[in-house]
Parts: sequence; structure tokens; C-alpha cells
Amino acid sequence: MYIEKINGPADVKRLSAGELETLSGEVRSVLLKKLSEHGGHVGPNLGMVEATVALHYVFNSPIDKIVYDVSHQSYAHKMLTGRKASFMNVDEYDEVSGYSEPSESEHDFFVIGHTSTSVSLACGLAKARDLKGDTGNVIAVIGDGSLSGGEAFEGLNNAAELGTNFIVIVNDNQMSIAENHGGLYRNLQLLRETNGQAPCNFFKAMGLDYLYVKDGNDVQALVDAFQRVKDIDHPIVVHINTLKGKGFKFAEQQQERFHYSIPFSLETGELLVDLGNAEDYADLTAEYLLHEMQKDRTLVGITAGTPTVFGFTAERRKRAGKQFVDVGIAEEHAVAMASSIAAGGGKPVFGVYSTFIQRAYDQLSQDLCINNNAALLLVFWGGLESMNDVTHLCLFDIPLISNIPNMVYLAPTCREEYFAMLEWGIRQKDHPVAIRVPVNGVITRGIEPAKGYGELNRYEISHLGEKVAVLGLGSYYQLGEEVVRLLEQEKGIDATLINPRFITGLDEALLDDLKKRHTLVVTLEDGVLDGGFGEKIARYYGPSEMKVLNYGVRKEFIDRFDVSEQLLKNRLTAPQIVEDICACTSFAG
Amino acid sequence: MYIEKINGPADVKRLSAGELETLSGEVRSVLLKKLSEHGGHVGPNLGMVEATVALHYVFNSPIDKIVYDVSHQSYAHKMLTGRKASFMNVDEYDEVSGYSEPSESEHDFFVIGHTSTSVSLACGLAKARDLKGDTGNVIAVIGDGSLSGGEAFEGLNNAAELGTNFIVIVNDNQMSIAENHGGLYRNLQLLRETNGQAPCNFFKAMGLDYLYVKDGNDVQALVDAFQRVKDIDHPIVVHINTLKGKGFKFAEQQQERFHYSIPFSLETGELLVDLGNAEDYADLTAEYLLHEMQKDRTLVGITAGTPTVFGFTAERRKRAGKQFVDVGIAEEHAVAMASSIAAGGGKPVFGVYSTFIQRAYDQLSQDLCINNNAALLLVFWGGLESMNDVTHLCLFDIPLISNIPNMVYLAPTCREEYFAMLEWGIRQKDHPVAIRVPVNGVITRGIEPAKGYGELNRYEISHLGEKVAVLGLGSYYQLGEEVVRLLEQEKGIDATLINPRFITGLDEALLDDLKKRHTLVVTLEDGVLDGGFGEKIARYYGPSEMKVLNYGVRKEFIDRFDVSEQLLKNRLTAPQIVEDICACTSFAG
Repeated sequence: MYIEKINGPADVKRLSAGELETLSGEVRSVLLKKLSEHGGHVGPNLGMVEATVALHYVFNSPIDKIVYDVSHQSYAHKMLTGRKASFMNVDEYDEVSGYSEPSESEHDFFVIGHTSTSVSLACGLAKARDLKGDTGNVIAVIGDGSLSGGEAFEGLNNAAELGTNFIVIVNDNQMSIAENHGGLYRNLQLLRETNGQAPCNFFKAMGLDYLYVKDGNDVQALVDAFQRVKDIDHPIVVHINTLKGKGFKFAEQQQERFHYSIPFSLETGELLVDLGNAEDYADLTAEYLLHEMQKDRTLVGITAGTPTVFGFTAERRKRAGKQFVDVGIAEEHAVAMASSIAAGGGKPVFGVYSTFIQRAYDQLSQDLCINNNAALLLVFWGGLESMNDVTHLCLFDIPLISNIPNMVYLAPTCREEYFAMLEWGIRQKDHPVAIRVPVNGVITRGIEPAKGYGELNRYEISHLGEKVAVLGLGSYYQLGEEVVRLLEQEKGIDATLINPRFITGLDEALLDDLKKRHTLVVTLEDGVLDGGFGEKIARYYGPSEMKVLNYGVRKEFIDRFDVSEQLLKNRLTAPQIVEDICACTSFAG
Repeated sequence: MYIEKINGPADVKRLSAGELETLSGEVRSVLLKKLSEHGGHVGPNLGMVEATVALHYVFNSPIDKIVYDVSHQSYAHKMLTGRKASFMNVDEYDEVSGYSEPSESEHDFFVIGHTSTSVSLACGLAKARDLKGDTGNVIAVIGDGSLSGGEAFEGLNNAAELGTNFIVIVNDNQMSIAENHGGLYRNLQLLRETNGQAPCNFFKAMGLDYLYVKDGNDVQALVDAFQRVKDIDHPIVVHINTLKGKGFKFAEQQQERFHYSIPFSLETGELLVDLGNAEDYADLTAEYLLHEMQKDRTLVGITAGTPTVFGFTAERRKRAGKQFVDVGIAEEHAVAMASSIAAGGGKPVFGVYSTFIQRAYDQLSQDLCINNNAALLLVFWGGLESMNDVTHLCLFDIPLISNIPNMVYLAPTCREEYFAMLEWGIRQKDHPVAIRVPVNGVITRGIEPAKGYGELNRYEISHLGEKVAVLGLGSYYQLGEEVVRLLEQEKGIDATLINPRFITGLDEALLDDLKKRHTLVVTLEDGVLDGGFGEKIARYYGPSEMKVLNYGVRKEFIDRFDVSEQLLKNRLTAPQIVEDICACTSFAG
């Protein structure tokens, strides 16, 4: 096999045209085997195999610099740049990350995991090259789906002004994670249908030169195109028409299903793991909302390119009809639109991953919260036990969201409370509301939740004890239960347990009242400590005699971490917390 | 005068064509008189007079809904919708805000102050209309300069999918705040030059219908165009070619100077106030950077459409040449590009207002800090005493920036320290660094600043006393000095004064050491308390006996506030702080 001899781009360059094609086939086979056994981004990587081979044949990485957007199409690149063992040897599968990673190779320039950034990042490399008087090609690779994000547009707009070598490869596989949404995609279609000849051309309208490659899975056509643009003296877009999932029929046919997959059968496309029938909040939420949509035609679900985050599969999107909007990968627009749908008398529910709500801070502040519109955000996966790549940490949504005035950020502790909050969030008209959907499974506490949450910042005392009060926020309520149990069992302390419910404010009356029978308050939150919930409690008690212990994750970027290790390191296990409580109080020794 | 009889859009509709023109002239005269006496956004408003008159003649506000981007062209709209007294009567000048404001009128739908939001906000109104089965036109007004922001693009992309009535008025005055930057603007130019007929059309490429109005200051031409698109059944862009500053020769000739102005002479265009020769950090920074640029050709200044925030006037931009980049109003791209210029070996310095860095949280986190590139951000105007419109509060940059891992956010207390930090920030290669430029004037403390700041999170003890330690952050260091002086004078307490210098981390050794001789730590920061610096100190001391008092601004949106009132309300005056210190300690009664 050729792939066995490829230790870097130089080895690709030695191959003949026919050999490049053979190599592409081998790369695809290796990719498929690993993906089927290990999981990962399937469709986008399969579609980019030939283009990656052609890029490394024509260009001279790392002097020529290739920046891959969102990294979901960078696996072949990794294989061709000295990392093939991590794709071919089962034991080494985890040696590479799923993302572009400079620490792995001189051929990667950035850690990249959020979409729509490659053009901007490549722009800076080109600018640095020009400032230093260096030469070489700078190439941004971006998928059609990623073009809907505002940062990509800002990058393209500025790229046109570089006036020097700059190449944008638009990998058009006619799909985002789900189907594409937006007027831009009609233009891409027009360009495909006219073999790139249509005079109305988005890229040319952005001031960029343009070249179309009809068959973006034909390695020779790609080599020809790349050779034409190599060393070009101005910015150009090379628009390549690829097939998402190319070469694996199930991925070609079920493109959304195979955008990303956990291990699957190469023979049947079926998952190798039985996911069972465990309930999850995504499905429960979608079904709840679909039911409500029947009763209220102004209720509308919104996604920014990730509809399944709250259970809106293709089938459910169809059921929702006009009451579901996918704005493309465009969180800024999603938040602004949610705000204005509420202003216009509708009931918007924006479902979003914790890591991606980061993309819309200013819209949360300006478009939504200053205007105090009653939009509802459902923030999924917030916490340590969700995604564990450094680019997808779900630890920062609390500081991001909860320090914005007017926002009501709720932290349900169980299924009953989540749905009570969801119902209130939809019906109320007074506040922008966000709900941090629990990540520790669908837990039923058997409680009668509050009828509403309009009386803001009222914490709930689940158990009134003495000496120590534990505030267990959201998913960490159960950790709080454990701490209280352990304090009783091991230290004979009858501690108080509190469900704060509100992340965004203090129940000052309750906090004051705690002073009567308590000398220590412990806060538990499933996110970064800095700027979070616990610090507000610490500030409140700052001038008083009350001691405070805040638990959460320390402020640092962690990558592909082991959850148990992180819990231990941050002293987030009940025995450690009890130990700390004893260390800072006199009554428990 | 006609304007005297205009109490709402209905009165505009009664006028004849000739009278609309006369009314436009009157509106312009009134505007100019108020602006010359009161200050405000001059150029953009003067250019939009005829279009506003035509909009209210043709459409039926508030059933038809007009959303003005960034509000810098909404003054004529305010005059025509029942608020003319606030433009004509000196005593009522301050009765209206400079921004779109629902609390003032049913004709305003959102509080809007940041750019590039109108299309997204209008989209939601259209969606709500459609969900409810209502009718009526929804109209977004957006300037050409605002089109460079990613949110505007995301909005246009989604607008094309609405499939129902939606009208975007692109007010093309060929200027942003300064000149426009980006490839898109070449297309707008092409469209103007071809009377809208060029087949390569950005808006059509976005899937939108399109209509061009050659003379966007001809009220009849605008009326005709708006009548053509009124009640249209699909989204359309009406591209109107206007003159920024129209009707005031100085504003027509000096478009950047008259984008916004404090009071000026109608006869000469000169400012009515002598600004004197007081030094400011903008000028000092630009001159410093220009000097450094001579020595280091890889040093590059970056702005997102607001070059003068750090002193880069047109003349200085010319001097900087290729070492200055204006990316348009595109903070996301600016941050990403700064990161990658650093990655590529250049030295980027991005100057930005506190309120606008909010627009790039995810880029700070993902593009910059995860990659740990040595870009330098200069954050200007952070604090209470800068901008006082609710949309332009500069109070949130500390929680926004300082809770991101890897970031080093510095708070200089004086001129010497600022330039020492600036020098270090440019030369170091280890961290993303941001500097919060002081807002309390250019103060010289006469100190010898540190040689570098590479040893992170080392606070400086300016004076070692006992009992009380005051941490005065950045611009509030001088308030700290005042508190310490007052404690000595009035209570005989020899308090400790500390300059934390680092917003992003704790000097744990120093904080531990304070426990020996102090029982109270006071933090002072010029920004919102929630998620800020002081809370980290409170968290640190939470389990200890040390008491902590945090001072800053409470979390709320405040509009057109009086600084002194806010200082009093937040107990941010030295006497109040001393009073609080006495109240929570036993040694000072």
C-alpha cells in the first residue's frame, strides 16, 4: 500500500497521477476502518480525501500553510502529515485528537474546533507573511456549512483586501451538519449548476477571484486546479464540489446521520453499540415542544445548525413545520431572532450547546437582555461530563450568561423541575430566560416542583439542618445530597441542603437566615469557578462571619481529559468536600 | 413650517410630493441646529432624512415595522414619530436618547446601539408576524458600514428563507465611521456604477430580490421605490445611494470627522468647545505604536472600524501604511486575525472599546486563548466614566475577558505603568495579553514600573500598613489611595494599599501574607461586580477568617446615568467605603 510509505507531504509529491488516485482510495479505506471502530466525523472527512491528497501534492506544507475550518475534514491531512499510525494502528487511535492540533505536527497551525474561523485565521497568517516579507501560499479550507457563520463572512470580506496570495478552498458538500439553510446556498447551487459560470457569484461579489472544480473527488482535476492557483498574487476562492460521505454508501445516503458517528458496522451502517432506551433530555424536550406547538402556533424552535441538540431530528423537524427554524451555523442571528420573535409576540425556544452559546455573547447582552424580551434558551451539555475536547468544553456558560443583567438563568436539578421551568419559561413574558439542562441523566426526584419561577432568586431549602449549608446547583444537586449524607454518616453533622434554582441572583433573605444556625456555606457548580455562581455567594458573605467554600472547575483549558481525574483534581468528590469542610471548621474534626 | 404640524406618520402621509421635499429640508435644518448645539451623530442622520420621510409617507408605522440598525440614522424617524419637540426645543433636547428606544415611542421596537443587528431583529418580527398570521411590512434599515459585521450577514442569509414580506433598506453612504474596508464594498461600488444593473450582485447572491435607487436623497424617487416594494410577498433589498452629511458642507467634506460630533459651529464647522491640549491615552498610544512600528516592521495595529479609539486618525493611518489594518466593523475577525498574526510571527495590537470587545467572546476564547498566541489587546474606556448609554456601557469587559483561561488581563494604574505594560505586551511571546487602559485621565504617579510582567499575578504593595488592605484595580487605584488617606485621617488606621496589576489571577502568596496583619480586604474595580475581580478575592478568602468587601457596580442595565449618582448608589466614594469598613470591623468604630 502507498499509504504505508507516506510519512509526510514529500512522499505524496513523489507519486504519479494514478498513484495519487490509489492513495486516495487507501486513505479512504483506512479512515473508514478507524471511524467504524472508533467513531468520529465520518461524512466530511470522506468527502475531503482527494482534495487533501491533491493539496499535499501541489503545495509545500508547512511552508505553504493550510488551515482547516472546524477540523472536521482534517483527518486525511493528519494521515498524510506523519500521523498515519494513529489511523492505522488500533492501539494508537487515541494518539491524535479529532481536531487540528499544533502540538501534534508542524503542519497544523491552530487548535480549531468551532466553525467559521479558518478564513480569518488564515488571513492573519497571510498578513504576518507579508509583514515579514516572507513568501509561500496561505490556504484556508472551509465547508459550505461553515460559511453561514458571521466570522467566515468577516474573514472573506477582509481577505479581499489582502492584495496578496491567499487561497480559500470551499469544500461544498451541500450539507452542514444537517441540511444547509440560507439564501447563500441557492447561489452555491447556481454555481454548481452552471459549472461556476453564473455571473451572480457570491465570492466574486465579496471581491474575490474564483475558480470552480466540478468534481471535487477527482484527484487529478483538483491537482490541476490547485496548480493553477498556486503562488497566485491575489486572493482567490477555489470552489470544489464534493460528496459528503463519499465512498461509503450509508454515509452518502444518510448524510446527517453520518456527519459524526460513534462506532458502526461497515456492512450495515448500524451502530455497534446498543444505545438502549434510556431517556434523554433532547428527546423529551423535542416531544414536549412538539406537543406544545400543537396548542400554540406561535411557539417556535430555533437551532443554529445543530437541531438534534434538543431532539429535533429530521422527522421531528418535519412535524414542527414552520414552527422550527434552522438558521444555519449562526448563533448570533439565532439569539437576535429569538429576542425579536418574542418582541413580536411569538414564543421562541433556542436550543444550543453550552460551548456554542459562547458565540453570541453580545447578542445575549444587546439584542436580548437590554431589550428584556421573553425568549427562552435551552443550554445543553453544560458541565464537565459532556464534551471533552478543549475546543468544546462546556464549562463557561455560567460566567458567560449569568453576569448579564436582566437574564434569568435557571438550574433544574431533576426531570420534574426541568419541565416545570420549561413550561414557565415558555409561558412567562417578563424576562429573557435560559435553562441549564441537567447533564447527569434524567433523574426523577419525586418532588412537586414550583408552579412558576416569577418570584426571582428564591432558593429552595430541601433539608434544613445546621452548621453547614450545601448549595448544590443544577446537575450538582445530587453531589450536594451525597455530601450531606456523608456529613451525617461520617461526622454526625445534620447539614442543610439547598437547591438554588437561580444561577443569576442571590436569595439574600435566605442567605441571611442561614447565618443563624450555620457557620459554613458550601457551593457546588458544574462549571468553571471564575465568574461563576459560587463567587457571588462568597462576595455576599465577604463582610460577614460566614465561611464559604466554592467548588467547581478551576480556570484552565483541558483537553481530552478523564472526568474522574478532573473531579479528583478539583476536589469535586463528596469525600474530598467533606474533608475540606472538616479542615475549615472547628465543629467537625 | 410643516414640521410643526407633524405629530406622527399620519401627518406625513397627508403631504404632497412637493411638501415632502420641503419637510425634508425642514427636518434637516432642525437636525443640524440641534446637532450643532447638542452634539450627536451628524453625517449618518443628515443622509437619511429623505429616506425617513419617504418611509413614513409610504409605510404605515407601527403596523409596518421599521428597525434601524445601530440607531445612528434614526433621528429623523424620532422627529416624525411624535418626538419633534426633543429636537426643536432646547430644553427638551435630552428627552430622547440617541438610540432607538421603545419606551419613547410605539414606533421603536428595540433598544439598539451596537451595529449589524437590524436585519436579524427584523427577521424575528417577520417570523412572529407569520406565525401569528398577521400582515404588515417589516423593514430593516442598515448602513453599508454595518454590513461588514457577521451578524448582519447571518441575518441576510436567513432572511432569504423567510419566503414572506421582508424589506431591507441598505443606506449606502459609502462610509463606515471611517472609510469602508472589505471586498464587499467593491461590489456596492459596482452596483452604484451600473445603476444596480451589474449581474454580480452581493444581495442577489444572498438569495434576495433587489432594487436600486440612484439618488437616495431624492424623496420622490424613494417614495416611488418604497411604493413598489410595499406589501411585497418575499424578501427584497432596496439599495439607496445617499450622501453622508448631506446638506451641511463641512459634514459632506469631512465625513469621518462629522460621523459623530460634539457641538460645532454651523458657519465654520469648528468645535464650539476648546478641547485644550490635555494628553489622552489614544494619542499617546498611537504615537508610541507608530514609533515602534518604525523599529519593527512586523508590528501591526488592528481596528474593527473604530481606528481613533487608539488614536489612529486618517493622518496616522497613512503613516502606519501596511502596518495598520481596519477590518471593518468585524470584531470577531479582528480578534482571530490578531491571534494568527501572532502565530505567524507578527506583533498585532488590536485597539477596541470595552463595549465592543463583547462582540468577540468566542474568538477570544477559541481563536486566541486556546491557541495561547501572543496577541495584544488594548481595551479602552472600560469603566463607569466613559460612555453612558445603556447600549454602550463599558462595565462588562472584566467578567468577559478575565474568566477565559490563558488570558493575561492587565490593569495599569498610571501612565508609567501603562507604557511599561504596553512595551511588555508587544515584546513578550508567551501569552494573549489585554490591557485595560485607564479612564481616569493620564495620571503620572512618578513610579518606576516593573521591567516586565512575565511573572504572572504578582500584585504590588504600594504601602504596607495593617488591619485593612485595599486592592485598587486599574483606574480605581486612585480611589484606593483616597480610601487609605481617609482611613488614616479619620480613623487613625494605617491601611495597606495594593496595586493588583493583574485582573486575571490571584497573588496567593501575597493574599496569604496579608492574613498576618489584616482582618479585612477591600477590593475596588471600575466595572460590574458580578464575575469580576473582587469576587475572586472573596472566593479565595471564603474559607478563612479574613473579611472581604467588594466594590464595583451592581449588575444592571443603566441608561444615560449621572456618574456621581451611580458612584453614590454603588457606595463607590471614599467616605462611603470608609463608613462600610468601620461598620464591618471592630477596630474602627
